[in-house]
Amino acid sequence: MNRIFFILVAAGVPLSVIGSLMHWPSAVLFAVYCVTIIALASYMGRATESLSIIAGPRIGGLLNATFGNAVELIISLFALKEGLTGIVLASLTGSVLGNLLLVAGLSFFVGGLKYKRQEFNIHDARHNSGLLIFAIIVAFVIPEVFSVGMGNASKLNLSIGISIIMILLYVAALYFKLVTHRGVYQPNNAAQTEEEEEPEWSGKVATIVLFAATIVVAYISENLVHTFHSVAEQFGWSELFIGVIIVAIVGNAAEHASAIIMAFKNKMDIAVEIAVGSTLQIAMFVAPVLVICSIFFPTSMPLVFTLPELVAMVSAVLLMIAISNDGDSNWFEGATLLAAYVIMAIGFFLL
Amino acid sequence: MNRIFFILVAAGVPLSVIGSLMHWPSAVLFAVYCVTIIALASYMGRATESLSIIAGPRIGGLLNATFGNAVELIISLFALKEGLTGIVLASLTGSVLGNLLLVAGLSFFVGGLKYKRQEFNIHDARHNSGLLIFAIIVAFVIPEVFSVGMGNASKLNLSIGISIIMILLYVAALYFKLVTHRGVYQPNNAAQTEEEEEPEWSGKVATIVLFAATIVVAYISENLVHTFHSVAEQFGWSELFIGVIIVAIVGNAAEHASAIIMAFKNKMDIAVEIAVGSTLQIAMFVAPVLVICSIFFPTSMPLVFTLPELVAMVSAVLLMIAISNDGDSNWFEGATLLAAYVIMAIGFFLL
Amino acid sequence: MNRIFFILVAAGVPLSVIGSLMHWPSAVLFAVYCVTIIALASYMGRATESLSIIAGPRIGGLLNATFGNAVELIISLFALKEGLTGIVLASLTGSVLGNLLLVAGLSFFVGGLKYKRQEFNIHDARHNSGLLIFAIIVAFVIPEVFSVGMGNASKLNLSIGISIIMILLYVAALYFKLVTHRGVYQPNNAAQTEEEEEPEWSGKVATIVLFAATIVVAYISENLVHTFHSVAEQFGWSELFIGVIIVAIVGNAAEHASAIIMAFKNKMDIAVEIAVGSTLQIAMFVAPVLVICSIFFPTSMPLVFTLPELVAMVSAVLLMIAISNDGDSNWFEGATLLAAYVIMAIGFFLL
Repeated sequence: MNRIFFILVAAGVPLSVIGSLMHWPSAVLFAVYCVTIIALASYMGRATESLSIIAGPRIGGLLNATFGNAVELIISLFALKEGLTGIVLASLTGSVLGNLLLVAGLSFFVGGLKYKRQEFNIHDARHNSGLLIFAIIVAFVIPEVFSVGMGNASKLNLSIGISIIMILLYVAALYFKLVTHRGVYQPNNAAQTEEEEEPEWSGKVATIVLFAATIVVAYISENLVHTFHSVAEQFGWSELFIGVIIVAIVGNAAEHASAIIMAFKNKMDIAVEIAVGSTLQIAMFVAPVLVICSIFFPTSMPLVFTLPELVAMVSAVLLMIAISNDGDSNWFEGATLLAAYVIMAIGFFLL
Repeated sequence: MNRIFFILVAAGVPLSVIGSLMHWPSAVLFAVYCVTIIALASYMGRATESLSIIAGPRIGGLLNATFGNAVELIISLFALKEGLTGIVLASLTGSVLGNLLLVAGLSFFVGGLKYKRQEFNIHDARHNSGLLIFAIIVAFVIPEVFSVGMGNASKLNLSIGISIIMILLYVAALYFKLVTHRGVYQPNNAAQTEEEEEPEWSGKVATIVLFAATIVVAYISENLVHTFHSVAEQFGWSELFIGVIIVAIVGNAAEHASAIIMAFKNKMDIAVEIAVGSTLQIAMFVAPVLVICSIFFPTSMPLVFTLPELVAMVSAVLLMIAISNDGDSNWFEGATLLAAYVIMAIGFFLL
Repeated sequence: MNRIFFILVAAGVPLSVIGSLMHWPSAVLFAVYCVTIIALASYMGRATESLSIIAGPRIGGLLNATFGNAVELIISLFALKEGLTGIVLASLTGSVLGNLLLVAGLSFFVGGLKYKRQEFNIHDARHNSGLLIFAIIVAFVIPEVFSVGMGNASKLNLSIGISIIMILLYVAALYFKLVTHRGVYQPNNAAQTEEEEEPEWSGKVATIVLFAATIVVAYISENLVHTFHSVAEQFGWSELFIGVIIVAIVGNAAEHASAIIMAFKNKMDIAVEIAVGSTLQIAMFVAPVLVICSIFFPTSMPLVFTLPELVAMVSAVLLMIAISNDGDSNWFEGATLLAAYVIMAIGFFLL
């Protein structure tokens, strides 16, 4: 498997560069870019696994989510610069739905085919439930409902106020998890299992691979954004569908790869940490940063989604909480999450 | 008690036939039909209890829900043929509310009067919570919100897409419960209690009673549908109130009877399986089947409820999850569910 | 600390009387009234602590919530008499948000700074979750959604019907907690801890202090209501912001003081009982009583909030349930609740 990805990267990266210089047809470029990004993502997955063996599941999961979302942040900044606020909000929605339903769904399903029941830290799951409700059901819903009766200036002020509070709370969450309450909510048997395994790469190599892959992915993603218009026209896809489904799947390829590998190795803590951790990072860090950055661009971006996007995210959060709150997963719960994702994809396709 | 129901059936069935042939006044027929259906439902309750002693609480509960909902499906198909999509959607809403609030409420309340605390399988309760959120908060809410911006063709396509996914997931749920994970989530003391009891009827007799009662109930229900118009005018009830409250109570009489009998005998697992199992079957099997069948009738039926119906179902699901997620019930929780049902009945009456 | 409050009360009460007789500027009166009410609230907090040592945490918490809300009820009746239904509904919203997010948030945060993890009765927490969903997500949402298609008469009838059911269920909840299921859901170690402590005041003195403070607070609150108009104009605050934030903070000062004192002494059961108990009392007793009383006033008050108020309350309930359902709290959960409160305060300020 690793050899295939190596070939894909070795061929994909140069083709991407040549293709974009020689202006190949958009559809071809679109395909080459997507395959290359997914291949690079597998390297990010293997680097994450090494780092989580060395530094523990939480830091491993956090690093993976951070590098994965770095790609997302970079793509979105390019799109914001060109005033594509609609696609940026759609791709944020896509990341939330993609991580909560597709990544978690595939992890539960694939892991569930091999193991009857899989367990993960119930305290982390409930800690995450509270934050998911805060980020999506408070911080995304309030501006949507309150801004109905507001002028644009107030709408932006409200979004900025909320963004600042979210970033502060996100930093507080890291401080809580990694400093004041580090190990407080860990089940006692957690420590030993990690020591016996040998990491594939050393800490240094893994971080370099993760970093390099992120840079290349960012470069390719930037070109990918330019193919959207023509690809949309050619395939008859709406901007909303591209943002919510296509960009999100490609942008989250790293998380997808790592989470499924971890689930298949019965390391559910890392898989859930990647899926939910990434969602929280998108909602409580990437989205607010984009709102604040947008003040310096020609078109500012208030934190106001379309109603279908908001309702899809709220129902995805409620479904994920109901399914993950008992710290126990099986193949059927994965199938339920995937079924919800397919329903939403059909909805956005027909919109 | 059984003797009263015997007399009611022995008198009710012939009177129903004669009355409909001789065109008695609608109000009289309406009353005769309702009493007869409820009497027949008690037989379905007793047959269910025998079957669950023989084949275990899950299959017993499943059979009861299936035969109970068969009546619902038959009535709705007749109504669909006559283009009454409004009443069909209303009766689906009524079944969801009726089972989640009235049946579960009465079971918790009646059982709670006799036992201070009653317990039921917490894994099943949480498994059901996930499915309730998927069926009602994802699969019913998404078409409602997304179809606001859609043409009729897309609206129907979305409903059909969702219906197919729901039926597939429902079959997967049965496969999960009865095959791959049968007994995996059972508390260890479950098995013994069931062996000591003697079933009232043998497996064969019980199935025949269940089957025969369902056929007669289907016949009477078909006539019942025809009395709606005149009864509505006479009593000043709206179609919505008839669909959501009257049809649902009459159509779910079987579940009501069985669930309360089981709760009173401290067999909470079956009572909860009937109440929630029946709701899931309505939402994930009966409703999608009706949507797909409606393509072949003059008026097709997209899966789009009115806002009051949808909000009532969503709040009923959230309430039932909050109350049942700890696997522990008492009379007050039953009173809370019943209070919610009364509030919604008043709402639909005044609408 | 107690000496400061003594001075504030000794000075505040006479100043309030003189100020209102001599018609000092509204802004000055507004400040004097608020400071005096908060000082009186600290006495109510100390009285509550004595009573809960004597009569147990539940009764202590209940008494505190009742006397605290008595102030709210009195202020609202005065405002109703003057037809200010908008401010009354806003202050009910403010009390719900204030108790669930500010009082509980401050308690978890302040307690969490001293203790790494604090625990409270998980059965009570889940019992309260069910009631919170019933009161806010069923009883407040149903009239809002159903009344969209209704005339004013039906709207009021629905509100009255719901109010009667809520009061009945609230009385049933007290009967359940204090009679039929008293001690049933108590963790076994609960009893001893309470006996070792000596109450500051005897039962009689504590009740007199609680009663006297409530009367004085009621008198001052009535005058406070009259300052709203001019203060609103002077500071540019909307009526909604005054009702939801200012009135609620001042009106709930008693709960705030007691809950934080209890949390700091690691008596989380009482702190949570005050925060959530008070919310339930507002939603299931004070609000319905006001609706019914409003029939006898020139302007009746249906139980129909504005959409921002309703959405804020629903998301606050979902957040509080997700955070408190495990019976375990820490400083970060407090910070999350406080962050949600600040977001909503900004929203109401900009509305």
